[in-house]
Amino acid sequence: MNEKAIYDLTYGLFLIGSKAEEKENICVVNTVMQVAGSPTRVTLSCINGNLTPELIKASGYFTAAILDETVEFDTFKQFGLQHGSDVNKLEGYDVEHDVNGIPFLKTNACSVLSCKVISCQDLGSHTLFIAEVVDAEKFSDSRPVTYAEYHSRIKPKRSTKETPKEIIGWKCTICGYVYEGAELPEDFTCPWCGHPASDFEPVYKE
Amino acid sequence: MNEKAIYDLTYGLFLIGSKAEEKENICVVNTVMQVAGSPTRVTLSCINGNLTPELIKASGYFTAAILDETVEFDTFKQFGLQHGSDVNKLEGYDVEHDVNGIPFLKTNACSVLSCKVISCQDLGSHTLFIAEVVDAEKFSDSRPVTYAEYHSRIKPKRSTKETPKEIIGWKCTICGYVYEGAELPEDFTCPWCGHPASDFEPVYKE
Repeated sequence: MNEKAIYDLTYGLFLIGSKAEEKENICVVNTVMQVAGSPTRVTLSCINGNLTPELIKASGYFTAAILDETVEFDTFKQFGLQHGSDVNKLEGYDVEHDVNGIPFLKTNACSVLSCKVISCQDLGSHTLFIAEVVDAEKFSDSRPVTYAEYHSRIKPKRSTKETPKEIIGWKCTICGYVYEGAELPEDFTCPWCGHPASDFEPVYKE
Repeated sequence: MNEKAIYDLTYGLFLIGSKAEEKENICVVNTVMQVAGSPTRVTLSCINGNLTPELIKASGYFTAAILDETVEFDTFKQFGLQHGSDVNKLEGYDVEHDVNGIPFLKTNACSVLSCKVISCQDLGSHTLFIAEVVDAEKFSDSRPVTYAEYHSRIKPKRSTKETPKEIIGWKCTICGYVYEGAELPEDFTCPWCGHPASDFEPVYKE
């Protein structure tokens, strides 16, 4: 089995908005796809243990803003590399709300889908939601960004400069998992989200 | 609701191989996505009424060959615009078989995933399969093709030349649905697969 074959799958990139009671959150995922028509249905897969799947299960709704080619790494740092349980990621942003009262951002997005969950299934590492698209808005004709572009163009390249700082671990930039140790094996894959060593960044001794 | 927002979702393109008893088939889809890790799981959505979902339900297995940038329209004509119930689409092709005995083609593909179904759900127009990736092979480092490229570069453009032939209907190039009538409304969406008028091609009077 060549694990690298899995990385040839193609994805877009999305900001998923969720809300339950007073708590609102937005996180980055690459896992939204249309799976049926009349009515239009999509799937969304979210890493378990994060705030987003909990809020979606509690309310039964989410938004999926489709990120476009203008998006930069700051968006991924803000909404992908922090946990909604620790910080209010939406503070200072121009947040709008859809027909179901769920937050979304128009910034760097070409469209937003308003989704109502019809079923969810626990797949161990992730929860898979199947949802009906109950509303949809298009903001621009800009080109949707792909996950391949995130890897090739958007995320910062690892510095090749020698650094005097001591590496004590490696953090998965996709899901936040931390590997403890100075050297990450080349063939390592993240036990939480299955991504390869190239998606990890060093954690330095403070 | 702006239906066009749905077309901003990003997909790859795949040849799905299936087999039950002596019948083998390969068809084109754009709906394969990783949804969980450890074990690696993917979803696949297939249009109901076609041969592929029937064969997959019968055997519990499928292959997903990930098409690369070298693919041309002939592949879509052969495996996407014909029905496996009517013709043997594999005749004359250099078909290989995976660990589960399921057919796949290496031509114009960078990788193939061997998948074992763990659940399936009827979503009306489509069946959604959740499957574990039990084997995977990478043939080349060529770049996976996207569904957006199919629309922008691969599929033939509608001819703008005047034609003396009489149009009697419009056929969906995605799923084969035929609309009867000389004029297809601009805002028409396929009742089988949800794709827009731009995905239809004319059917001429013989």
